Amino acid sequence: MWRATVLTIFPDMFPGPLAQSLAGKALTSRVWSLDSVDIRAHATDKHRTVDDTPAGGGPGMVMKADVLARALDAVPHDTRARLMMSPRGTRLTQNRVAELAHGLGAVIVCARFEGVDERLIKARRMEEVSLGDFVLSGGEIAALALLDACVRLLPGVMGREASAAEESFADGLLEYPQYTRPPVFEGEPIPEILTSGDHKKVKAWRLAEAERLTAERRPDLWQAYRARKSLKNRPESKG
Amino acid sequence: MWRATVLTIFPDMFPGPLAQSLAGKALTSRVWSLDSVDIRAHATDKHRTVDDTPAGGGPGMVMKADVLARALDAVPHDTRARLMMSPRGTRLTQNRVAELAHGLGAVIVCARFEGVDERLIKARRMEEVSLGDFVLSGGEIAALALLDACVRLLPGVMGREASAAEESFADGLLEYPQYTRPPVFEGEPIPEILTSGDHKKVKAWRLAEAERLTAERRPDLWQAYRARKSLKNRPESKG
Repeated sequence: MWRATVLTIFPDMFPGPLAQSLAGKALTSRVWSLDSVDIRAHATDKHRTVDDTPAGGGPGMVMKADVLARALDAVPHDTRARLMMSPRGTRLTQNRVAELAHGLGAVIVCARFEGVDERLIKARRMEEVSLGDFVLSGGEIAALALLDACVRLLPGVMGREASAAEESFADGLLEYPQYTRPPVFEGEPIPEILTSGDHKKVKAWRLAEAERLTAERRPDLWQAYRARKSLKNRPESKG
Repeated sequence: MWRATVLTIFPDMFPGPLAQSLAGKALTSRVWSLDSVDIRAHATDKHRTVDDTPAGGGPGMVMKADVLARALDAVPHDTRARLMMSPRGTRLTQNRVAELAHGLGAVIVCARFEGVDERLIKARRMEEVSLGDFVLSGGEIAALALLDACVRLLPGVMGREASAAEESFADGLLEYPQYTRPPVFEGEPIPEILTSGDHKKVKAWRLAEAERLTAERRPDLWQAYRARKSLKNRPESKG
């Protein structure tokens, strides 16, 4: 069983949306488990303080190293990845998601306030992970996203395993446009080629469309894709 | 009031985590509103079908243009942004979040299955938005993230408005390391400079640390930051 432990000051946010849909079914059937740990329960003063003002001044509050250390150290010791959701982290990619899904699970700290005392991050070797270049009010929704991405890759969670492979990013391209019934929608027919029954042509059309979309929307992915492609097509050098 | 309308086949996922914390308080105090629309309610057959097999074959299911069009067209017509959460979209940035927060609100379609019939996306001019290069089981958690990011920027939501400006991405750099009490954690003191009281030195140290972290973790941001900086420092050309 893939095990997730989430450390948060909002334990009621979990499982939240993960109680439904694919992840919810997988939770019920024990493909994975989810514990949420209330960081406040590890504070020692009567106000259950988890944060304090930043050393050196500035706005906001910083999560305390000592309280978070106690919360982390109370999680049974194992070799699961230790992640901290933070806009300062390295960007989450589908590759990292797949690696995590192949592992034992994840221990995830949801950062809040202006951040977390750096000494805790270093001492507990937290891997800082970011969803993208935008700022959330805390790591909770980011943790939900990370878990959803991992859980759908666990064996048996998706109806057809094939779905995952054909999706965006599997080949470094955005997904091609999709169509389904009705044959005509507001005067617009489904592209003829898709209803031709010619599988070779369908495949070629989809690849061309995926390439077009990627070039238009994501020059970064497009550049990387072209570089890989030209490497593949180049005859082996005899060095 | 900033108004969000979310179209989903899992309306119970909303407000979910957004009922708590900053976003929850702002929801209660009517800084923003959130409606979730059940796409299934706009299906016309007795099975409430919202998806069908992809034209041209392939795994998974595609959301039907006709059903989604009815659901969208039932949302009162206004000038709010029309977004669709999808890994095929352009990447969400803090700039786009700020633009959305300054607008009237957002109408968000949560894509599921293998995607959405392309004709609907074009006919209703949906803006496809992606959180990042990873795949979720649906757009719901992505919509929660987008809404959280927007709502915290609405006037009065954050305790101190200053927080937003000093955060990651405001200046194109990742946030500098933070420290707070205790002064020594597991033998590690807070960097002396931060407790020196010398605000100029603190500021310089934080900038240097933010630059170091950005260069280490995000070569893309670092390159853009350096390019902007060298442009600024260059004397005006007399062209």
